[in-house]
Amino acid sequence: MLATATEADQGPIVLAGVLLTLIVIYLASKLGGELSKAVDLPPVLGELVGGVVVGASALHLIVFPEGGAQAADSLLMTVLQAIAGLDPRAAASVFESQSEVISVLAELGVIVLLFEIGLESDLRELQKVGYQAAVVAVVGVVAPFAAGTVGLMFFFKVSAIPAIFAGAALTATSIGITSKVLSELGHLKSKEGQIIVGAAVIDDVLGIIVLAVVASLAKTGEVNILNVIYLMIGASAFLLGSIFLGKFFNKSFVAIADRLQTRGKLVIPAFTFAFFMAFLANVIQLEAILGAFAAGLVLDETDKRKELDREVVPIADILVPIFFVTVGARVDLSVLNPVVPENQQGLIIAAFLIVVAILGKLVTGWTVFGQASINRFAIGVGMIPRGEVGLVFAGIGAASGALDKPLQAAIIVMVILTTFLAPPFLRLAFKESADKQPDLIG
Amino acid sequence: MLATATEADQGPIVLAGVLLTLIVIYLASKLGGELSKAVDLPPVLGELVGGVVVGASALHLIVFPEGGAQAADSLLMTVLQAIAGLDPRAAASVFESQSEVISVLAELGVIVLLFEIGLESDLRELQKVGYQAAVVAVVGVVAPFAAGTVGLMFFFKVSAIPAIFAGAALTATSIGITSKVLSELGHLKSKEGQIIVGAAVIDDVLGIIVLAVVASLAKTGEVNILNVIYLMIGASAFLLGSIFLGKFFNKSFVAIADRLQTRGKLVIPAFTFAFFMAFLANVIQLEAILGAFAAGLVLDETDKRKELDREVVPIADILVPIFFVTVGARVDLSVLNPVVPENQQGLIIAAFLIVVAILGKLVTGWTVFGQASINRFAIGVGMIPRGEVGLVFAGIGAASGALDKPLQAAIIVMVILTTFLAPPFLRLAFKESADKQPDLIG
Repeated sequence: MLATATEADQGPIVLAGVLLTLIVIYLASKLGGELSKAVDLPPVLGELVGGVVVGASALHLIVFPEGGAQAADSLLMTVLQAIAGLDPRAAASVFESQSEVISVLAELGVIVLLFEIGLESDLRELQKVGYQAAVVAVVGVVAPFAAGTVGLMFFFKVSAIPAIFAGAALTATSIGITSKVLSELGHLKSKEGQIIVGAAVIDDVLGIIVLAVVASLAKTGEVNILNVIYLMIGASAFLLGSIFLGKFFNKSFVAIADRLQTRGKLVIPAFTFAFFMAFLANVIQLEAILGAFAAGLVLDETDKRKELDREVVPIADILVPIFFVTVGARVDLSVLNPVVPENQQGLIIAAFLIVVAILGKLVTGWTVFGQASINRFAIGVGMIPRGEVGLVFAGIGAASGALDKPLQAAIIVMVILTTFLAPPFLRLAFKESADKQPDLIG
Repeated sequence: MLATATEADQGPIVLAGVLLTLIVIYLASKLGGELSKAVDLPPVLGELVGGVVVGASALHLIVFPEGGAQAADSLLMTVLQAIAGLDPRAAASVFESQSEVISVLAELGVIVLLFEIGLESDLRELQKVGYQAAVVAVVGVVAPFAAGTVGLMFFFKVSAIPAIFAGAALTATSIGITSKVLSELGHLKSKEGQIIVGAAVIDDVLGIIVLAVVASLAKTGEVNILNVIYLMIGASAFLLGSIFLGKFFNKSFVAIADRLQTRGKLVIPAFTFAFFMAFLANVIQLEAILGAFAAGLVLDETDKRKELDREVVPIADILVPIFFVTVGARVDLSVLNPVVPENQQGLIIAAFLIVVAILGKLVTGWTVFGQASINRFAIGVGMIPRGEVGLVFAGIGAASGALDKPLQAAIIVMVILTTFLAPPFLRLAFKESADKQPDLIG
């Protein structure tokens, strides 16, 4: 038992790996979050930076096979391998299993985050700002896509398909990062906050449709119209269906929760519903987080809201950091090193993409109509962070051969910087408005 | 994207599988738990039965590769395969990943359960009943081991090594099931409850040492004395170290938690500590749950206890059912079918093992000294459920060739029945004492 481990013995070692990874994630998230808070920045920025420190860019404690890492590249696996006396083949299999578990835990983390954001949002408020949010979303997709694609073709002589791919990667706002920062700043329920969240949701749906179009264009050279129609119908049906549910299902939910007698009588039906909606969204090829957000919106309409809110908080507290730290850990900052010759072209393109990414979303603030005194700058800034969807574009683009190395690196740099710049900027944007109207927000 | 999925696309499908599995688990746990409660039985019994219904014995919604199941044996995978259009190879890989994730979630569930039980237990109370618990544990290991081994050799002409293996499988009480039932009955903090929990912890350690002895005996024909000494020293150092920590570390913990400003300021340090202790226990080849229990005991000594307790409850509510439902789902009741000829010999041996398993633990109640008015029957009954450790013995025994099919089936039947009989019996045992002393417990 002490010497080498066989297949059957790997269960406890995978568990040990997961526990060790979670310990590292929690330490990184708390150290980063607290330091960030101490210098008056949103804690989530510190969690992302904490992830970068323990991830592929620096300490190599947490790395993922999708990033091309092997078991031997993971410092944590090296420790585990020495403790458990694993041979390299067993280590590779433990590394794979452990990474899979952590990836799913991170996805459950962002699902719970969006469920919580949904619970904190107000369906009626969202509907009130629905048209404004839709305009912000559409402009925020079209502007950076058009400017990015045309600019790459015109200034950098990039051919059409890779330029369209890179342009598409500029479209989708990271709803997770934006909503978390808004919540931390206490602005989630403000009119600006609700427009940003609503627009981020719509823009996420648009981003998925754009991805489907671009991916089929890159693969076959033409657009699969049927798939696009399918996605558009699915997305509309899903969002409208959720609002419909929000008005009728919530009573049944309360009736069920009231009849249950055993432990978890509120939280288990709530999570069953949230996971079901996430599954549904996932199955119709939207993102699981959209389903969780919709579930949160629906349950926010019930009179169990406050109790549920209180119970979801600790669950979110232990799951959400796994998402943010692993987002940071997956980033490889070595693409930013200007000494490496092949990075240089990427960095120049990246500079262009970042300008387009920021300006393309900033303008959306000024498209909000009928709201004279609104903080337009804050809305624009709130739409800036790109996060994981941009990375998905870069990954699929590289895998399909549509993107060459410099262009792929440029997209990654753009995602990193928009993600890391948005939290402090958003803080600033709301601070300015608070300074202007101290009586309103304080 | 709609047609077949390649390796890179499997992430979302694994997530969909995990979400679907969790939905089934939650539905099974709530339906089972509520029905059980309605007929005045402990809810955890219903969760186990719910697991049996959705598991390998009936609906085949949740099955595991370790049980010899393929993707095609899982009804849930069949649904997923149809939805996502997976080819059989991709389905096999998704099934494997998804099962791994659910297994680890179940293990995290029992870790959180034992952490919570530790938080609800009182180190000083446990120390007060320490000697009694140790005697109960030792007798509860020696009696069924000796009676089982000798009886199998004498009555059933089983040769020495398999008889010793089966005897050893009778030793370890399932601390998870016992402590959950005690908590549900409101008897965790009673003197009887603390003796049972203390004895179950010690007996778990003894069981692990017995397993190491028996496994090396079965593999090499002789006992690896060094490994046994290593385990005994490790276990003693770990338990004494935890008590030591309990007296000194708790102040540092409060000091750290008090200085933190961001969300999860109590629950993240607490889980970091619990996971660290679980990791440590796992690494020195004890069980992770022992570490989590020790962590709970340590943090119970702090003045953050109540706040932490409140925050751990919803986390336990969503994770613990995953453990109990999968325990039920892994059970294959087909070994109980008396029509199958090869089950018949197993069932006869099983009847013998069950009698030994129950009597061997029941007697422990009468070994408690210096406690005149204690409910001895309840203590004996509390030690009866065997649960997962017994299944580990059966699995290792079968893999090493020490156990033949009827004997392995007999052990599994013994585990099933002791696990399912104990909750209602325990309920009865405490009810009787309540009827006798209505002024004390009522």
